[in-house]
Amino acid sequence: MRRAEVFREKQGIDLRIGHQVESIEPAARIVKGTTAEGRAFELSYDKLLLATGAKANTLDLPGFDLPGVFTSKTLEDGRRIKQWISETPVKRTVIVGMGYIALEMCEALRERGIEVDMVKPGPVFIPWMNRDLASVVRQDLEANGVGVYPGHEIIRVEKSDRGLKIVCSDMVLEAQTILLGVGVSPCGGLAEAAGLALGPGGSVAVDRSLLTSDKDIYAAGDCADAYHVVTGRKTWIPLALRANRSGWAVADNVTGGRVELPGVVGTAVFKVFEMQVARTGLSVREAEKSGFQPAEAVIKSRSRAHAHPGTTDIWVQVVGDRKTGRLLGAQMVGKEGVAHRINAAAVALHAGMTVEAFSQSDLAYAPPFGPTWDPLLTAANQLLKKLQ
Amino acid sequence: MRRAEVFREKQGIDLRIGHQVESIEPAARIVKGTTAEGRAFELSYDKLLLATGAKANTLDLPGFDLPGVFTSKTLEDGRRIKQWISETPVKRTVIVGMGYIALEMCEALRERGIEVDMVKPGPVFIPWMNRDLASVVRQDLEANGVGVYPGHEIIRVEKSDRGLKIVCSDMVLEAQTILLGVGVSPCGGLAEAAGLALGPGGSVAVDRSLLTSDKDIYAAGDCADAYHVVTGRKTWIPLALRANRSGWAVADNVTGGRVELPGVVGTAVFKVFEMQVARTGLSVREAEKSGFQPAEAVIKSRSRAHAHPGTTDIWVQVVGDRKTGRLLGAQMVGKEGVAHRINAAAVALHAGMTVEAFSQSDLAYAPPFGPTWDPLLTAANQLLKKLQ
Repeated sequence: MRRAEVFREKQGIDLRIGHQVESIEPAARIVKGTTAEGRAFELSYDKLLLATGAKANTLDLPGFDLPGVFTSKTLEDGRRIKQWISETPVKRTVIVGMGYIALEMCEALRERGIEVDMVKPGPVFIPWMNRDLASVVRQDLEANGVGVYPGHEIIRVEKSDRGLKIVCSDMVLEAQTILLGVGVSPCGGLAEAAGLALGPGGSVAVDRSLLTSDKDIYAAGDCADAYHVVTGRKTWIPLALRANRSGWAVADNVTGGRVELPGVVGTAVFKVFEMQVARTGLSVREAEKSGFQPAEAVIKSRSRAHAHPGTTDIWVQVVGDRKTGRLLGAQMVGKEGVAHRINAAAVALHAGMTVEAFSQSDLAYAPPFGPTWDPLLTAANQLLKKLQ
Repeated sequence: MRRAEVFREKQGIDLRIGHQVESIEPAARIVKGTTAEGRAFELSYDKLLLATGAKANTLDLPGFDLPGVFTSKTLEDGRRIKQWISETPVKRTVIVGMGYIALEMCEALRERGIEVDMVKPGPVFIPWMNRDLASVVRQDLEANGVGVYPGHEIIRVEKSDRGLKIVCSDMVLEAQTILLGVGVSPCGGLAEAAGLALGPGGSVAVDRSLLTSDKDIYAAGDCADAYHVVTGRKTWIPLALRANRSGWAVADNVTGGRVELPGVVGTAVFKVFEMQVARTGLSVREAEKSGFQPAEAVIKSRSRAHAHPGTTDIWVQVVGDRKTGRLLGAQMVGKEGVAHRINAAAVALHAGMTVEAFSQSDLAYAPPFGPTWDPLLTAANQLLKKLQ
């Protein structure tokens, strides 16, 4: 992505690659480790930034170390998968997991003409998603020839005549590649060993200025936690914008600025085949867990005005709090107009708007882009009735 | 759109078509007029709703009453234009005006293979739009073979060998059809004659509950004014969502509810050829006129992630207030991802967000839908520097 020389020559940064940091000594303000050549090194600091990222989860089960089993986290992972596919006659892939990465990989493989089965132990397809919306996504996957198998305990991977097989408690799936898309975990080990406070899921706890529990150590990117603007509590949602934004904020703060980031609302979007799938804020279950009294409304609307050529279905779910009337979250599925439409709800969450105030928003209308009442407004109007 | 029988039979509404109301007597709570058959009628009311809409502006110049000259406001207008085009060999059309309707008609005619010239007296193409963004739209029109002639005083229309010609002070344009798209005006005449207070442009002044200056008369739809949420002042922006929403609000209020509408932020979008053009809130000039001290930032970003296939340019302008740091408006042009992206800014205007708060929004990111930093955020970040 970036060559080391650029940092060194153009920006005067003493960039050291091939240096494995093994410990931090906060009191002495020193990091220690070993170089690629096996030489011990030690570096002192005034301010330290932990940007250790997240790592792909794996399964501690037999056979998951066989050739042809891959995770998909780094650029290098992608290159290895591509090479395997081009060198091995891959007719069928099993993807373990059904999250963003698993679904995006599914589409990429189907577009190369590879058959795909998806399997996971959990019984619910996209558990954070409203059931009606999740079923739209699932139907789209199945219409694209994908086998969707939630609720199957995975036992092991074995070699087979046709390449590999993944053995579940109640079925066997054959494939020439197995991809793991079972989430990521923050790389918080160094921070933990140094005695720094940890956040959700073992992430590095930071305040709004990205400072850890040590006044000279910052953390940013997928290793660090964040405040959830809707709940006010700590959360760990490793997504690109927050990671990038927190890096800039640390740069400002280390060089004398005073930047505080309010936090995240958990806005995310992905594309799977022709479907755009988006969410922001809390699901009903997340809202309940956070002490809200959620109500939800689910509507089916259209992506363009009535009778406009090319109009397709859009499903919207909105969640609000019975106690305060506040908007808590939104989810959306459809073939067009979903990816950016979710942002209106995201901004409303940042502003702490009530469902009523949000329902009064003056949103854009023109026949090629939606009905007179934007689907988000129709959903908000329905939700209002349940909150009153 | 709706048959009179449905209102009468299914909803028990005494719907009278072909009744021209000629006066309102607020003190007596009576409306008077003439039926299509020429019979005088009189109707008393407890509550009255004025939903008289807006009418297409025309030009009081010679020849604009010739056959082949049309406005485009009603369904009937559309049918007459279609019929004329199918019956007359129309090779070329001149559109007078360059607003939403003019631009949408331009696209519709070009798609039927008709040559189009657009002309207007005002010297500036889309005057409310940032010059950089307006020039993108203009280039797109010209790339689609449209002649764009702002700044030409129009003298008259005449018959010619080839059909019609429109004579300007400094040029002549030939065509077989001339379309007028020179804006609309509110139908506020009845209200004015009845002594009701008027709003901007001769619209009917209403409060947040849609009540006019008479306690028994409401007004809703394109005839009524609204509060502009950004300026706090009255405005008249006749668009479909507000018209529809205000109708529902009156129905609620007349039947015992207490609905107040906060107002509009002037969000609008239109499509012209492949371009989506959107705005919300105030332009720099409108902000100055309203007493703000505006600064603007204009950026060019991309509709998809770096190197994602199909990525196209997106231009964004954002306007903020130097005094308060408040976001005042946004404009956007691009081939995809504009129509719904503008809504994030619209909601921020409703919430009265500062540019800084808006710039911290957790907006959706996935490579098919935009860069990590949404173009709106990039623009807000640039604007922040100018406000500090």
